[in-house]
Amino acid sequence: MDYKTTKDSDLAYFKSFLTESNILTDKTTLEGYGKDHTEDLFFEPSLVLIPQLTQDVSKIMAYCHLHCIPVTPRGAGTGLSGGCLPVKKGIVLSLEKFNKILKIDPSNYQAIVEPGVINEHFQNEVQLQNMFYPPDPASKGSCTLGGNVAHSSGGPRCVKYGTTRDYILNLEVVLPTGEIIQTGANVLKNSTGYNLTQLMVGSEGTLGIITKITIKLLPFPAYNTLLLAAFDSALDACKCVPAILNAGIIPSALEFMDKRGVELSTKAHQITFDTEQGNAYLLIEVDAFTNENLMPQCEKIYEVLEKHNVKNILLAEDTATKEKFWKIRRSIGEVVKKLSIYKEEDTVVTRANLPELYDYISYLSNTYGFDCICYGHAGDGNLHVNILKLKMSDDQWNIELPKAIRLLFEKCKELGGTISGEHGIGLVQKPYLDVVFQPIHFQLMQGIKRTFDPHGILNPDKIFNM
Amino acid sequence: MDYKTTKDSDLAYFKSFLTESNILTDKTTLEGYGKDHTEDLFFEPSLVLIPQLTQDVSKIMAYCHLHCIPVTPRGAGTGLSGGCLPVKKGIVLSLEKFNKILKIDPSNYQAIVEPGVINEHFQNEVQLQNMFYPPDPASKGSCTLGGNVAHSSGGPRCVKYGTTRDYILNLEVVLPTGEIIQTGANVLKNSTGYNLTQLMVGSEGTLGIITKITIKLLPFPAYNTLLLAAFDSALDACKCVPAILNAGIIPSALEFMDKRGVELSTKAHQITFDTEQGNAYLLIEVDAFTNENLMPQCEKIYEVLEKHNVKNILLAEDTATKEKFWKIRRSIGEVVKKLSIYKEEDTVVTRANLPELYDYISYLSNTYGFDCICYGHAGDGNLHVNILKLKMSDDQWNIELPKAIRLLFEKCKELGGTISGEHGIGLVQKPYLDVVFQPIHFQLMQGIKRTFDPHGILNPDKIFNM
Repeated sequence: MDYKTTKDSDLAYFKSFLTESNILTDKTTLEGYGKDHTEDLFFEPSLVLIPQLTQDVSKIMAYCHLHCIPVTPRGAGTGLSGGCLPVKKGIVLSLEKFNKILKIDPSNYQAIVEPGVINEHFQNEVQLQNMFYPPDPASKGSCTLGGNVAHSSGGPRCVKYGTTRDYILNLEVVLPTGEIIQTGANVLKNSTGYNLTQLMVGSEGTLGIITKITIKLLPFPAYNTLLLAAFDSALDACKCVPAILNAGIIPSALEFMDKRGVELSTKAHQITFDTEQGNAYLLIEVDAFTNENLMPQCEKIYEVLEKHNVKNILLAEDTATKEKFWKIRRSIGEVVKKLSIYKEEDTVVTRANLPELYDYISYLSNTYGFDCICYGHAGDGNLHVNILKLKMSDDQWNIELPKAIRLLFEKCKELGGTISGEHGIGLVQKPYLDVVFQPIHFQLMQGIKRTFDPHGILNPDKIFNM
Repeated sequence: MDYKTTKDSDLAYFKSFLTESNILTDKTTLEGYGKDHTEDLFFEPSLVLIPQLTQDVSKIMAYCHLHCIPVTPRGAGTGLSGGCLPVKKGIVLSLEKFNKILKIDPSNYQAIVEPGVINEHFQNEVQLQNMFYPPDPASKGSCTLGGNVAHSSGGPRCVKYGTTRDYILNLEVVLPTGEIIQTGANVLKNSTGYNLTQLMVGSEGTLGIITKITIKLLPFPAYNTLLLAAFDSALDACKCVPAILNAGIIPSALEFMDKRGVELSTKAHQITFDTEQGNAYLLIEVDAFTNENLMPQCEKIYEVLEKHNVKNILLAEDTATKEKFWKIRRSIGEVVKKLSIYKEEDTVVTRANLPELYDYISYLSNTYGFDCICYGHAGDGNLHVNILKLKMSDDQWNIELPKAIRLLFEKCKELGGTISGEHGIGLVQKPYLDVVFQPIHFQLMQGIKRTFDPHGILNPDKIFNM
């Protein structure tokens, strides 16, 4: 594609309908929009636009389509695959001012929101009306619902409640050509034409800019209990995961943490942690609508844990202890990333294959001499593998490590899985996409992309080349 | 498109790899493949092929792509939108011999099946292993899982468990060009490229031929109770629907039936029905993993029903009574269709708008002088409107009625809904698709169709024109 850089005349056009505070050109400010939470990547945009109206997003897109100016949409910049980085320069279109909850509708268990609403804020607001929005990425305090939709984000509760995808009923989208569409209807079932809604979910801002989201809600399950189980053997912990589900229990969270992750996290947050130290941990939450339904579930889980050589189980019943345990889990990612330059792989396999995946990661780490910390959503077979550069040479890091990552992804495929469970492909997993896709997959995706974005201006070079 | 008819040379090619019993040319047999359960439509194919191997489906498609021969895939022929009718003649490709359950995997709560497996047979088989596949269209005894995927079929349990769409993890698909792909991976979460799986679900056999389905299963909730509530006012029954959900109960079924539907169904099946006759009924099922969890749900439902002027409530606790009540509901469609030439509209709105939809249907029926019987999945806001021709003149039926149907669909849109909840667009709803879609929607769908099927040979003229 022959992309154009932004000129003074472009700026003049944007100034004709955006206020000054919604156009950023200052170099220091632009730099802030050139990064996200992915490794140490940086791509500076030419211009940042912060529209507040769908109609203005439409004007921007129609203009950029006509003039072949790249546009990269951005939520909160908490992504882990480089999806919001303006790799072809051009415009970063920030949705930060699309931050209103437009409607919470208890009679239909639905809400309509703008994409810039913070996930946790939304959860809290619907809970006030006794409703429940389950998807809760680790970054829930800062990530936005639009970004969650773009990546089909997950989080701990997916094992019982599914991912963001399962809660999206309808979207208002501005297409790369500037046209505004509803992708579906605000209903629970819909067999009316191709499912444009689910095509948009997880397309990482390459097919359109989401400006409104209709969300399905559930009744809020007011009771929960949290167990923290320590194991001598990480493999035993992994084997427990399918066994708990097979006992007929669907926990509302079933998380794995390795020893080092827990050590780093507790140390960083000065959390005292009254358990015999294990080599691996499972954090298991069960929830219910009545208190009486909690303990029977816990009892079954205890039985399974004991069959799998659990060393110690802590039961958190009060809010403070629950928060402490969750803090350990939720902050691992952030703490680990402060240690060193890193790469995070978002491996996912069928749940019962988790032990085999874990075993293979240990093998790769020994063979290629890299250090890694594993944690994640074991109940979904989704393990985050944080690889640390530490003292690896640049050659090892840049040339040898990608070979190990390719092998890791090939193993994921062999175990029924794929290369990203919830982070997306974006920029950093692109080189590995051929592990799971044949040339025809790329042709189909390219054809879809061209249909939506004939000039290839929207979030160019993400997922695949056009 | 310049479609070709099948010639002797084509037949010779198919004979080179299909057995004689898998190629049907006999006129009487062909006629059987020219109908489905949609109104009184009939389109005779030139040829019926019944392959048994994915590789053979691939050969058929590659050949037909090359020679521009239309191919219409067919499951059990129970569809209600004419989706499997060969409107451009050519080949009907029947999946009836793709009828094996390939794997039931309790350790991952998954199954892999071929598309020709009967829905109810599959439900029963997974239940033997204490697992649960919720989607259960009224035709569950004869419809196939492949057809269910193609239409994203629903059924009574959607209100709690969602539609077919929510249980499809991955598909093996033969593309119109003959290429064979996996659309995704066998995992619970997947953010790897565009969601080709969900694009295929509900695409009514226009984008590819499904040859293998990976299905997500749940633990089986062994306990349930069924309530049949009679109301003097249909509007009161409709108003009960959101009220039950708002009381914090998610029934596993929440069905509406009008008086005439119930009368016809009980009479046809000689079901004695020990209740004061109402003008409308709700059939409400709650399920649970333990028996103790049933009655607290029922008690809350009783409270809501009483607040909404319920006339009479019957509680079915034994299997025979439950089956009797379900038989009344499940057979209405079939009994009604024996009365007269008919049209069935698959209206869907946001749940709380159901009373307004019902009211509007009464208004239309009075204004346009048609007779209709309403029933369906009230919990999803999905009401089937069966319009009977009876003594209407052909002019009224062919010219006036479509105007009323258009108004009905416009009302659905106004109430947050759309023109099909679970039956699909196929052939018969095509003329109304512009009620909910703008020209750009058609352009996007046409672009996607061309990407998958450049010669437009697969199930031509369905949903939209290419």
